Amino acid sequence: MAEHDIPRATAKRLPIYYRYLKLLLDAGTTRVSSNELSDAVKFDAATIRRDFSYFGALGKRGYGYDVKALMTFFGEILNQDTLASVALVGVGNLGQALLNFNFHQSSNARISAAFDINEDIVNTIQAGVPVYSLDDLEKQISDQRIDVAILTVPAPVAQDLANRLAKAGVHGILNFTPLRLDVPSDVRVQNVDLTNELQTLLYFINNFGGAEA
Amino acid sequence: MAEHDIPRATAKRLPIYYRYLKLLLDAGTTRVSSNELSDAVKFDAATIRRDFSYFGALGKRGYGYDVKALMTFFGEILNQDTLASVALVGVGNLGQALLNFNFHQSSNARISAAFDINEDIVNTIQAGVPVYSLDDLEKQISDQRIDVAILTVPAPVAQDLANRLAKAGVHGILNFTPLRLDVPSDVRVQNVDLTNELQTLLYFINNFGGAEA
Repeated sequence: MAEHDIPRATAKRLPIYYRYLKLLLDAGTTRVSSNELSDAVKFDAATIRRDFSYFGALGKRGYGYDVKALMTFFGEILNQDTLASVALVGVGNLGQALLNFNFHQSSNARISAAFDINEDIVNTIQAGVPVYSLDDLEKQISDQRIDVAILTVPAPVAQDLANRLAKAGVHGILNFTPLRLDVPSDVRVQNVDLTNELQTLLYFINNFGGAEA
Repeated sequence: MAEHDIPRATAKRLPIYYRYLKLLLDAGTTRVSSNELSDAVKFDAATIRRDFSYFGALGKRGYGYDVKALMTFFGEILNQDTLASVALVGVGNLGQALLNFNFHQSSNARISAAFDINEDIVNTIQAGVPVYSLDDLEKQISDQRIDVAILTVPAPVAQDLANRLAKAGVHGILNFTPLRLDVPSDVRVQNVDLTNELQTLLYFINNFGGAEA
């Protein structure tokens, strides 16, 4: 298997496949066709077959795919057996919502530390997660071997915090700020730009009408 | 200008260009090169030049692009002069955070109505937005001519609410639930799957190391 050669678009669909396969297995389904999967995840069946073929997972004609085998296989690719500790930097409204958002239920990641400057919540537990002072960022990231951070701070301080996170050893940043971050080449940034999502939707409706993205 | 022919990836970058051009203009910058824009928005300069060329916006060699002209032009494409009213369906933790998230500050949309079943908040104002009972969904969407809804409800009720929204005349749904929605062909769904974003980031770090997406 040449994981390094799979297209980025395929990689992005893997967690979705994984979750639906888990649902199917929990419901007692043992096999599934690409058409059935297509109905559930809303990618066309040809895309699904091509995606799976990158991993050498080939369905049998008239049988489809073995749900458990496929799920186990994708689970390994996605490292579902190891639990990743994630830092949340910025416990404002959005940060608070993400603390309450149960990532762990449907993924292999949990927020294990939150950071803020607000004295009212520093040294408290919010939604089960300890909130540390931003002064403790480097120490906690090192102590807890945190590799990934969720950034939900005001835009003006985002770059400075990205610098500190990268220096502290974080390799992945889920960036909810509108700022596009400058990071060293060994750090990956995934932008979740909510304003942009809404504007893109409005743009498509105004210019192209409906039809799913 | 053949707006219908532009690639989806280009369309998704328009709001980002628009916002940076606005920042530049606010800062008194009158012209910008594709390389400078590239530094700010983190798309490569060739991509930017190609994107702009779809709209016939061609920079002059040695001069670059006129910031104001470009911003006005993109603003028109993005309908920045009309304010879109948006419904928020589901005022839980994430819904509450989105109410507080100031979409309007940097986009042409505002949440004008929220809906929930929680008696404690129905008929109250949350973050400046009236919260209605879900029973009033159809009436308010019709009265306020709402075209777009943000869906932040528990997954088990998401499809039912998508059906009601579509029937009520909504043409765009920003879907924060993990469910992939079935909608009529004149409704567009944009999925914001936070668990998936985090898992994709973890997958890339584990398999490819850093480097920006």
